[in-house]
Amino acid sequence: MTVHIALDAMGSDLGADELVVGAVLAVREADLEVTILGNRDQIESALAGYSDPANINIVPTSQVISMEESPFVAVRKKKDSSIVVAFNLLKQAKVDAVVSAGNSGAVMAAAMRYLGRIKGIARPGIASVYPTLKGPVVMMDVGANVDCRPQHLYQFAIMASVFASVTLGIDNPRIGLLSIGEEGGKGNSLVRKTHRFLKESSLNFIGNVEGRDTFQGNVDVIVCDGFVGNVCLKLSEGLAEAILTMLKEEISKTFIAEMGYLLARQAFVNFKKRVDYAEYGGAPLLGLNGTAVVCHGRSSSLAIKNGILVAAALIDNNANKRISALLDDVHQGLDDGKPSAVEAGQ
Amino acid sequence: MTVHIALDAMGSDLGADELVVGAVLAVREADLEVTILGNRDQIESALAGYSDPANINIVPTSQVISMEESPFVAVRKKKDSSIVVAFNLLKQAKVDAVVSAGNSGAVMAAAMRYLGRIKGIARPGIASVYPTLKGPVVMMDVGANVDCRPQHLYQFAIMASVFASVTLGIDNPRIGLLSIGEEGGKGNSLVRKTHRFLKESSLNFIGNVEGRDTFQGNVDVIVCDGFVGNVCLKLSEGLAEAILTMLKEEISKTFIAEMGYLLARQAFVNFKKRVDYAEYGGAPLLGLNGTAVVCHGRSSSLAIKNGILVAAALIDNNANKRISALLDDVHQGLDDGKPSAVEAGQ
Repeated sequence: MTVHIALDAMGSDLGADELVVGAVLAVREADLEVTILGNRDQIESALAGYSDPANINIVPTSQVISMEESPFVAVRKKKDSSIVVAFNLLKQAKVDAVVSAGNSGAVMAAAMRYLGRIKGIARPGIASVYPTLKGPVVMMDVGANVDCRPQHLYQFAIMASVFASVTLGIDNPRIGLLSIGEEGGKGNSLVRKTHRFLKESSLNFIGNVEGRDTFQGNVDVIVCDGFVGNVCLKLSEGLAEAILTMLKEEISKTFIAEMGYLLARQAFVNFKKRVDYAEYGGAPLLGLNGTAVVCHGRSSSLAIKNGILVAAALIDNNANKRISALLDDVHQGLDDGKPSAVEAGQ
Repeated sequence: MTVHIALDAMGSDLGADELVVGAVLAVREADLEVTILGNRDQIESALAGYSDPANINIVPTSQVISMEESPFVAVRKKKDSSIVVAFNLLKQAKVDAVVSAGNSGAVMAAAMRYLGRIKGIARPGIASVYPTLKGPVVMMDVGANVDCRPQHLYQFAIMASVFASVTLGIDNPRIGLLSIGEEGGKGNSLVRKTHRFLKESSLNFIGNVEGRDTFQGNVDVIVCDGFVGNVCLKLSEGLAEAILTMLKEEISKTFIAEMGYLLARQAFVNFKKRVDYAEYGGAPLLGLNGTAVVCHGRSSSLAIKNGILVAAALIDNNANKRISALLDDVHQGLDDGKPSAVEAGQ
């Protein structure tokens, strides 16, 4: 079955071109159909250079939700925005998934409004993939839920675990709980309670992990609340950039060091490729009755292509059904009444 | 007046030698007296190679609080541990400050037990200095208080602000609140409430800052709860190490790149010096009736020396009196009853 993706062409920091090229790269690589939503002129002009847009359609939309807008207000008011129209298509089953590099809050708001949650999931969230010394690690939540309860983190573990198996091919992913000490008693009140939940479950929970474990590659899924996760995401991005800037400043101070850098340049290029988020595509919204992937506002066409492929992998592998099944499984494993609290949406 | 520092020689990951050498470097550089506490044999053997330990004394202690011990239990039971004896000396005004690279929880517990809090401070905390593209930035709290209220973060802003002026020479430091969006309405419930407190105060509050701003150098003090701060501290440490490891792995893959690295090597050394936490010495415990500085468990003698100098700078500049004065000042600037809530220790 050809997977059909709706791609929001508006809202990227780099303009519609980068997104459209991402769609072209995706249909060349996989058996996909992509419907691009946004300003028709911009999309057609970006497509003009390509001879093979056979599996690409355009749905023109007249409104754009900007990065600064309040998600809920914008989604309610801008009925002809690319984001809202995309989720309407998904709701009507005219497409299988939505990919957007726009306002991620608005994407989540539209997804909640038009798709709703998977039965039993209290809070959908956003998962993100980090490069590590050994391989990728999934962190969830990275921004959708800033104030969480233990049940929410517990369900993030379930959803991120399915995501890691489906898109990274990790069998029975090792789940760690982000804290500030390895013992179960360490951390804030939220983390200490979540630790007990996870320990009692049938999930492959390896215990607390610390910030420095994130990049070691000894854990496949790191669970945290959306405030902490988003701080970590942006801190990592900022630190990686600052380190490379400082290193280049030092290198440019002497002629010899600059010569050295030129010789070692390919190593820097390879390194950048290794840590480039574009390689991992976008961040999926998990826990929804449908599939949506948000991409970084500065996504290159490569990142958009990979974001589309991530969405397709989630569809192809029935990720949402697997989340429902795992939710039932681990709930049956708990016999102390906690699942009902979770299902009550607390 | 010669400042007199008590240095806990036990508990460092690198053994007593590194600490003792740090003390020697400190007394050579500044008008200081250092009393080293710990195993007499180890300290004397480390001092043996130095001809100038004139301002260095030894107070032998028989017990050690390890990194794994429960801080409160250990401090209550191990009366002859280097940490407890050091704080006893400080309580009796026989020394002016305590510096330790041991169990930082135990240092905080001993400080709370023997010194108590500055009047009006609800929760003492730990401040840490980060290198950025432009200059150092102070983050507080980085681990002492995992569950905080807005009043606590508000007081961290006051304390870290005094610390930044005293030790980094920053006049009227720019204070930022760590959040996941720049607008005041962004962030979790704790951050949103704290934002309102800070905005109404007479402090130099520049608004919310995001994780990626941490390393840009556009803010002097970053305020957060101890859970988030400690995650950030360890994540940064882990990421910086991972980036250098990956870069070196890529470089070692080709002979040409390795040659290049050799030529650019000094730039890497300079870079490391620039981001080395050892350059900034230790992290002060702020908000106590007394002065204490904790150093990283893997502190080099240079880091210990700088930790001692940070403690001396806090004493020389009457940091605690300035914290009290600023606390009074900003409280007088608030007229809606919040100060009483703070003083009640909520």
